[in-house]
Amino acid sequence: MKTSIRNHLAGKVVKIIKGQAMSEIDIETAVGVVCSVITTRSLEDLDLKVGDAVHAAIKSTEVGVEKP
Amino acid sequence: MKTSIRNHLAGKVVKIIKGQAMSEIDIETAVGVVCSVITTRSLEDLDLKVGDAVHAAIKSTEVGVEKP
Amino acid sequence: MKTSIRNHLAGKVVKIIKGQAMSEIDIETAVGVVCSVITTRSLEDLDLKVGDAVHAAIKSTEVGVEKP
Amino acid sequence: MKTSIRNHLAGKVVKIIKGQAMSEIDIETAVGVVCSVITTRSLEDLDLKVGDAVHAAIKSTEVGVEKP
Amino acid sequence: MKTSIRNHLAGKVVKIIKGQAMSEIDIETAVGVVCSVITTRSLEDLDLKVGDAVHAAIKSTEVGVEKP
Amino acid sequence: MKTSIRNHLAGKVVKIIKGQAMSEIDIETAVGVVCSVITTRSLEDLDLKVGDAVHAAIKSTEVGVEKP
Repeated sequence: MKTSIRNHLAGKVVKIIKGQAMSEIDIETAVGVVCSVITTRSLEDLDLKVGDAVHAAIKSTEVGVEKP
Repeated sequence: MKTSIRNHLAGKVVKIIKGQAMSEIDIETAVGVVCSVITTRSLEDLDLKVGDAVHAAIKSTEVGVEKP
Repeated sequence: MKTSIRNHLAGKVVKIIKGQAMSEIDIETAVGVVCSVITTRSLEDLDLKVGDAVHAAIKSTEVGVEKP
Repeated sequence: MKTSIRNHLAGKVVKIIKGQAMSEIDIETAVGVVCSVITTRSLEDLDLKVGDAVHAAIKSTEVGVEKP
Repeated sequence: MKTSIRNHLAGKVVKIIKGQAMSEIDIETAVGVVCSVITTRSLEDLDLKVGDAVHAAIKSTEVGVEKP
Repeated sequence: MKTSIRNHLAGKVVKIIKGQAMSEIDIETAVGVVCSVITTRSLEDLDLKVGDAVHAAIKSTEVGVEKP
């Protein structure tokens, strides 16, 4: 399966905050912690646990640019 | 200025594809190239050039998780 | 810090609904109430309270147009 | 038709930048100009012109908060 | 009211997971279940119930493409 | 590879509008045409052509609900 989604950042789950409908996942990557918000159902379907190797997936249209 | 946007990934602009309304920016980071799509007006307002030090800014709700 | 994010709407926090992972913030602006959903961690990191002067930040690609 | 999309900001089209696939629309509102990016097909389907009264429509999950 | 949002998929609510701030709605459509995340306030404002005929509304910029 | 992205709608490419940076793809599905906006580079990387069997991929947080 190939995808148009261009950004897939390799990392490791370091924290999970589980809510009723939505959950927050911290993913430690080489460029710092990347924070993700997914449904709690997806959290359970993927059986995500602290320590899991994962990728953060981001559509390019969602990425802004900041310049110091 | 503090922001609720949690993800700010440090990198360097390595490629710019300029369109009429929208442009695509490749940002080289420690975790690989991050691709961003912004308006061409923002590209010009920020005077973005290849080599510029920038951050990729991403709202957590836009980040999915993939598990091998 | 300059940003490609074009929309920053000035307002005042008038309501906060705090959930476990996500929270909802109502921001009163000159054009009406703008509703925002952020992580509860960001709510706490920014120490947001009713009455705070804030901006609503929105990437242009997220804005649709409706015509009567 | 009722919608879950909570933000509908009243304004007037003040500028249109038309690209091949995507176009950028500036909407003057009581809280400042709101910038929108839509498909050029939607621009044409809605027959948008400078001066049109419109609303900017934004899903709450797309709205971040900034605090000075 | 005409809208620039191009995707409006007809279906029926088949499941609701209600959280404090956010809720998840499963919509059965001809192409399978479509999952939506909206604020719990919108859930209540629309008085959504299992069995309701609804549309899933999606801005085109949020849709990626996968190819086997 | 498992993903937190819950919506993958099966269809067939029926139209491509190619721009410099962004392109628009119409995907015919059982529930009607679904419109997608992706980078022109992803269009080329996936070698998308009219007639290709694809899936439209959508994060649940991007899906709103409309009720007649």
